[in-house]
Amino acid sequence: MDFDKCENIKVEKEDGITFLSINRPEKRNAMSPAVHQEMFDALAYLEADDETEVLVIAGVGESWSAGQDLREFFREYENRPPVDTKRYMETNEGWRQHRLSMYDKPTIAMVNGYCIGGAFTQLCSCDFAIASDDATFSLSEINWGILPGGVVTWTIANTLNPRDAMYYCCTGEAFDGKKAEAMGLINKSVPADQLKAEVVKLANEMRKKNPEVLRATKQAVRRVRGMDYFQALDYLAAKMSEIRMRDKEDSFHQGLTQFLDEKSYRPSFEPFKRPAAE
Amino acid sequence: MDFDKCENIKVEKEDGITFLSINRPEKRNAMSPAVHQEMFDALAYLEADDETEVLVIAGVGESWSAGQDLREFFREYENRPPVDTKRYMETNEGWRQHRLSMYDKPTIAMVNGYCIGGAFTQLCSCDFAIASDDATFSLSEINWGILPGGVVTWTIANTLNPRDAMYYCCTGEAFDGKKAEAMGLINKSVPADQLKAEVVKLANEMRKKNPEVLRATKQAVRRVRGMDYFQALDYLAAKMSEIRMRDKEDSFHQGLTQFLDEKSYRPSFEPFKRPAAE
Amino acid sequence: MDFDKCENIKVEKEDGITFLSINRPEKRNAMSPAVHQEMFDALAYLEADDETEVLVIAGVGESWSAGQDLREFFREYENRPPVDTKRYMETNEGWRQHRLSMYDKPTIAMVNGYCIGGAFTQLCSCDFAIASDDATFSLSEINWGILPGGVVTWTIANTLNPRDAMYYCCTGEAFDGKKAEAMGLINKSVPADQLKAEVVKLANEMRKKNPEVLRATKQAVRRVRGMDYFQALDYLAAKMSEIRMRDKEDSFHQGLTQFLDEKSYRPSFEPFKRPAAE
Amino acid sequence: MDFDKCENIKVEKEDGITFLSINRPEKRNAMSPAVHQEMFDALAYLEADDETEVLVIAGVGESWSAGQDLREFFREYENRPPVDTKRYMETNEGWRQHRLSMYDKPTIAMVNGYCIGGAFTQLCSCDFAIASDDATFSLSEINWGILPGGVVTWTIANTLNPRDAMYYCCTGEAFDGKKAEAMGLINKSVPADQLKAEVVKLANEMRKKNPEVLRATKQAVRRVRGMDYFQALDYLAAKMSEIRMRDKEDSFHQGLTQFLDEKSYRPSFEPFKRPAAE
Amino acid sequence: MDFDKCENIKVEKEDGITFLSINRPEKRNAMSPAVHQEMFDALAYLEADDETEVLVIAGVGESWSAGQDLREFFREYENRPPVDTKRYMETNEGWRQHRLSMYDKPTIAMVNGYCIGGAFTQLCSCDFAIASDDATFSLSEINWGILPGGVVTWTIANTLNPRDAMYYCCTGEAFDGKKAEAMGLINKSVPADQLKAEVVKLANEMRKKNPEVLRATKQAVRRVRGMDYFQALDYLAAKMSEIRMRDKEDSFHQGLTQFLDEKSYRPSFEPFKRPAAE
Amino acid sequence: MDFDKCENIKVEKEDGITFLSINRPEKRNAMSPAVHQEMFDALAYLEADDETEVLVIAGVGESWSAGQDLREFFREYENRPPVDTKRYMETNEGWRQHRLSMYDKPTIAMVNGYCIGGAFTQLCSCDFAIASDDATFSLSEINWGILPGGVVTWTIANTLNPRDAMYYCCTGEAFDGKKAEAMGLINKSVPADQLKAEVVKLANEMRKKNPEVLRATKQAVRRVRGMDYFQALDYLAAKMSEIRMRDKEDSFHQGLTQFLDEKSYRPSFEPFKRPAAE
Repeated sequence: MDFDKCENIKVEKEDGITFLSINRPEKRNAMSPAVHQEMFDALAYLEADDETEVLVIAGVGESWSAGQDLREFFREYENRPPVDTKRYMETNEGWRQHRLSMYDKPTIAMVNGYCIGGAFTQLCSCDFAIASDDATFSLSEINWGILPGGVVTWTIANTLNPRDAMYYCCTGEAFDGKKAEAMGLINKSVPADQLKAEVVKLANEMRKKNPEVLRATKQAVRRVRGMDYFQALDYLAAKMSEIRMRDKEDSFHQGLTQFLDEKSYRPSFEPFKRPAAE
Repeated sequence: MDFDKCENIKVEKEDGITFLSINRPEKRNAMSPAVHQEMFDALAYLEADDETEVLVIAGVGESWSAGQDLREFFREYENRPPVDTKRYMETNEGWRQHRLSMYDKPTIAMVNGYCIGGAFTQLCSCDFAIASDDATFSLSEINWGILPGGVVTWTIANTLNPRDAMYYCCTGEAFDGKKAEAMGLINKSVPADQLKAEVVKLANEMRKKNPEVLRATKQAVRRVRGMDYFQALDYLAAKMSEIRMRDKEDSFHQGLTQFLDEKSYRPSFEPFKRPAAE
Repeated sequence: MDFDKCENIKVEKEDGITFLSINRPEKRNAMSPAVHQEMFDALAYLEADDETEVLVIAGVGESWSAGQDLREFFREYENRPPVDTKRYMETNEGWRQHRLSMYDKPTIAMVNGYCIGGAFTQLCSCDFAIASDDATFSLSEINWGILPGGVVTWTIANTLNPRDAMYYCCTGEAFDGKKAEAMGLINKSVPADQLKAEVVKLANEMRKKNPEVLRATKQAVRRVRGMDYFQALDYLAAKMSEIRMRDKEDSFHQGLTQFLDEKSYRPSFEPFKRPAAE
Repeated sequence: MDFDKCENIKVEKEDGITFLSINRPEKRNAMSPAVHQEMFDALAYLEADDETEVLVIAGVGESWSAGQDLREFFREYENRPPVDTKRYMETNEGWRQHRLSMYDKPTIAMVNGYCIGGAFTQLCSCDFAIASDDATFSLSEINWGILPGGVVTWTIANTLNPRDAMYYCCTGEAFDGKKAEAMGLINKSVPADQLKAEVVKLANEMRKKNPEVLRATKQAVRRVRGMDYFQALDYLAAKMSEIRMRDKEDSFHQGLTQFLDEKSYRPSFEPFKRPAAE
Repeated sequence: MDFDKCENIKVEKEDGITFLSINRPEKRNAMSPAVHQEMFDALAYLEADDETEVLVIAGVGESWSAGQDLREFFREYENRPPVDTKRYMETNEGWRQHRLSMYDKPTIAMVNGYCIGGAFTQLCSCDFAIASDDATFSLSEINWGILPGGVVTWTIANTLNPRDAMYYCCTGEAFDGKKAEAMGLINKSVPADQLKAEVVKLANEMRKKNPEVLRATKQAVRRVRGMDYFQALDYLAAKMSEIRMRDKEDSFHQGLTQFLDEKSYRPSFEPFKRPAAE
Repeated sequence: MDFDKCENIKVEKEDGITFLSINRPEKRNAMSPAVHQEMFDALAYLEADDETEVLVIAGVGESWSAGQDLREFFREYENRPPVDTKRYMETNEGWRQHRLSMYDKPTIAMVNGYCIGGAFTQLCSCDFAIASDDATFSLSEINWGILPGGVVTWTIANTLNPRDAMYYCCTGEAFDGKKAEAMGLINKSVPADQLKAEVVKLANEMRKKNPEVLRATKQAVRRVRGMDYFQALDYLAAKMSEIRMRDKEDSFHQGLTQFLDEKSYRPSFEPFKRPAAE
């Protein structure tokens, strides 16, 4: 994929970390159909890209994303046949929900400036989210005549506690990074000038883990919710086997050997040393 | 409905906000069969009342509600046929769960003084809850020989985190407004002398929103919980249509026009101007 | 059961409170097959033991539990037939999930030192958990090559909010008692020298409650989660009857009489006086 | 309740069996608001009526029920405020779902002639259903412009297999009693002239059972669906206690004594003899 | 889309009915990556195609589909990076599950010859299925070393009763059309020479229905399963509004007028006359 | 385990098939505490026994099992402390639900004579069930004063359709093998003199399958029920890996090679040849 030809996204790589950004700063990175298509394709490409160990979803300029572009989606699609909306939804849900929430690699939302409405979908699909203290979050749908659509209401109801979910969906009230952290919407809020450093630090943490163990763990955390006890027991055992089938580094024995025999690390505080990293 | 004839509830209207209060201050607003019947009827009446844009559930005097009246329900009904209890439950669950949690208009619990046992049902059925710092919450059932019945245990388990739910159900320990806010049981706790002002402020916030958009949003926040992804996607799209079918103000186009063409408001910070409100 | 012959657990009784501890301090109380078997048996015995009113799960020495013993389980079982693992899992899930999470008596985890990996299962199965501020919690599985197995991932996903669950499962980052309290993983964190006193205080609180009311309440808090409204209504009503069928102290009438007639206690702040306790 | 004053329903009692019928034969027993109100009240009354041991839902004349009266509901309510529809739904769902599906006494649908659209709600809420071979069932909504509303689609999806549910909702195709029996929609289809006899036979079967055991059993069959294993185990044990708390006939000991000591009956083939029945 | 260039599928149109067939008769229509891609694209195209009112999924030649092409998928993908399998799954689940099971138009599986393994996914995603008596169904996965993957096991478990699901997944035993009909896997089995006529007859039945009413109905039948009562009530009401928002034919009033005023049709037996169809 | 010392069960082995029978013919194989303990132990032993490839649950003499022994359980335990009942339940649920429904080897219920009440638990836990035409099934609980307890009501509600579940739980009516087959309670009913032959035939079918593939398949069929689409997709993929991790016979490649290269078998009609079987 030739990212130089993309007009709506930007890709930057730094030491195993790939920053994938919406690139419409003049529109506060509102998402147009073209944004969705490029993001959809880029996610697939980067999932197979060896240089990408951790994926960061970012925004070019002063905003993370202002949500769906009202003009290009809501107004434009109103008089088109309903099937056009359906196709549009496939692409935009495709990258933000199907691909992103099941990504094989760890994903981090790096949120600066505006995170509005529809942007909450990709926010919650990322495994981790770190924002700058002065970020502005808002479920503004109520303020211009719709409810938080796509699956935003569902995403919010599954992430925030019932009181916060109701309050912010009904008031559309804006809140900052610190409040987002306090409510569990994101992992952490830091001053704007430390945002990238904090993201890189977490990304590097992730790079030290065995990628197959990490992939299975993050999938499991999402999937066990709603299972009953016996389903979870069986599912988690099967995921253990899946790790061992896919893992080229034989982490299981590496971890045991370094810990039990070599006594070279303590698992409660650090990962074993990956062969590739030596 | 002639509220002057009601002996157990009190209705006061102020600029679109209706305060519906249990009126048994000498019993700390414990709920008798008569309370339940009057509340059941009042909720239906006020849902169709044009003067009521926002409903506040309050209590006359020093308490919000001390829960079920032990003498009038538990003792009185013990030797009556079980079907009497069943009818009684229909009425009291009818207003506190069926009607209140699905109310077409926004509802706010304004909690002062005691909020005990059975009163948690209506507390959690209200869309919002604001309490005074010196309010006293207690799941006291454990202390006199029952578990939190009706559906109180279920309500608590769906609202608090597992540790808090277990702790307060098993200890019956009293806690104040600040603790209730910290646990996500209510939205906010304020000093007693600011309670009403805070409630009115939120109510007026709600009055600025289009009522059909607000109704659909608050229903959706409750209903999507427990749906799977595909159910939520379909349901939320259908609720969008429902808004447009019911909305006399054509909010959708109002919102887009004021924002995209007139550039007269910013959705992230305020609602569009409702025609009625101009 | 002759606890003196147990080599891996220790039982101490103090005024109705029984402290059941894993006793492998040199292994930081890592759980071996022998630990699991003795705990499995001890739980059954103590549930029928009149001297045990409240059960505290503790650890001998400097740790609560370092999780599964890696050498004795993961390495040892690797080359044995899969059915051996299955039997092993039955015992260790048997005491930590089946028996402990449905215990008829109140249970408290008293956590000092390390609480690692597999130990989260019994942590969350206890009705209450109190830790010392300097306790060290860690989901270290990611660091040595597996995911949080058994049902640990499921337990975590059902206890922590989605962001915290993902973060601690994927990073394996250690955290202390205060953080555990803030996340809702435990009820409370106190300085190490107050740990036992705090546990005893809560245990004595529990001893004042009628044991049948307490048993039904704690079961109900766990079981209603995931029920729909009508299931919860029916289930909770049936649990009310179950209390009255099993309760030898007739708490229901005791509570009502002491409150309504004798006016000798206030349920919002204290339990009625149990006959046995007079 | 003075049934002689009811203009839309008819009540007939025969030896412990009460036949409650919609009485608008000229409208094929289509349900008007007045029908719903009278049924709602009658169900409450009869649940407490000692002469009513078994309730049969029937229809006067040639039809069971043609569903909602299109003129009196769909056309009439179209231009009224939405809250009127909401109140209307409360009553009609109130008797057909809330009251009927949780009735304390056994209920039998005795279906002759038309059973159309909305009538499937009460059909499935009855514990048992017997139809005449020449009955005409149809989910005709598709044919006049709506989907099977209220909760009919949900009821059908929970009763029929997926293929039959889709087929009959989408085609509106009529089917007779034999087909209804084959699909599991009803218990049995018999020639028209044996319909009442078959209903009476089943009703008398029910009259021989202890009413509290029967009540708990039929509630349990409905409520356990969707519970997980541990919820079901706890719930069913609690229902056992509920039977013993409510049962004036001490069935449990009667049953054991007559079987184990007196050897006077065989439970696999007949109930023990109820004291009242001797 | 230029279907003449498709090498793996075939499209034929007859009076509003479009037959979309896998076209690898020499491979018994086993599904290769190319088949999946062409089906994925064709489904999107035909959903917006005015000439396609009903979609029939068929197979060229003697088979419906032999499932995944073992050589082109299982063997070929074994040594490629896991992300290739992931992409492959997106396409093949994309058309068979995401697109087909949520298709806006009615879909019918017309099954002749072999329907094996992975083909059960599209079989169950079609709204209707009609097979020839001599069709051969088999969940043959057990016979060559895997379980019914993708989501076939899930699809089967949601369609067949528990005994049949277990039996056919574990034995891999082949069964014919009549058996498939008896188990509820398909709607109907007919002699081979009547297969197309039977499909066309049902398709024409569907063409008489208003397409928006039909779309909402078939979606609702799938989506309500697993909802609780209150979710279903709210969802179905919203779908009613959605029909009216989307429906250009104003079916609701057409249906009422033709029935109540013109008395020109009987909804229990036929649809109202669509304006377009007059 | 020395089966000769067992007084309540009987074990017979024939060519890889083990018949495990309750052996209290004089009590129609009613289950006493001793029966439960021996079955609990035997199941564990046989799961690791190389001679046991398929397990058949049978009954010595004229009955399969008459359910719980009323005298030894219900009467005997009534006056013992409730914790005794709890322990008793652990054992009897332990073998009938936990062990049997998750057995690593295929299980067949071979039902002759009486199958009453509590025996439905093990009936439904077996992967397959074959009965003689003259078997007598009855949920007789209603007839002696309890509801179908343990988890029988839940088991029935998950197996039969809603109408049949309600009917047989409320009437206690006995039914024979043919009816059981028609309702999907069992796989097949055959004349008494063909019962064993039919069971052996199915058992030998199972012996031809690779045991790891079979184990994963039968677990998956049980566990996917109630999962959502994304859970099922992830779970089934993980189970695929689990098969390959555990399978000593490398079935996956054997199956592909024999089919694609050697063309020595057709998966739709027969399994590949297991190395061990050559």
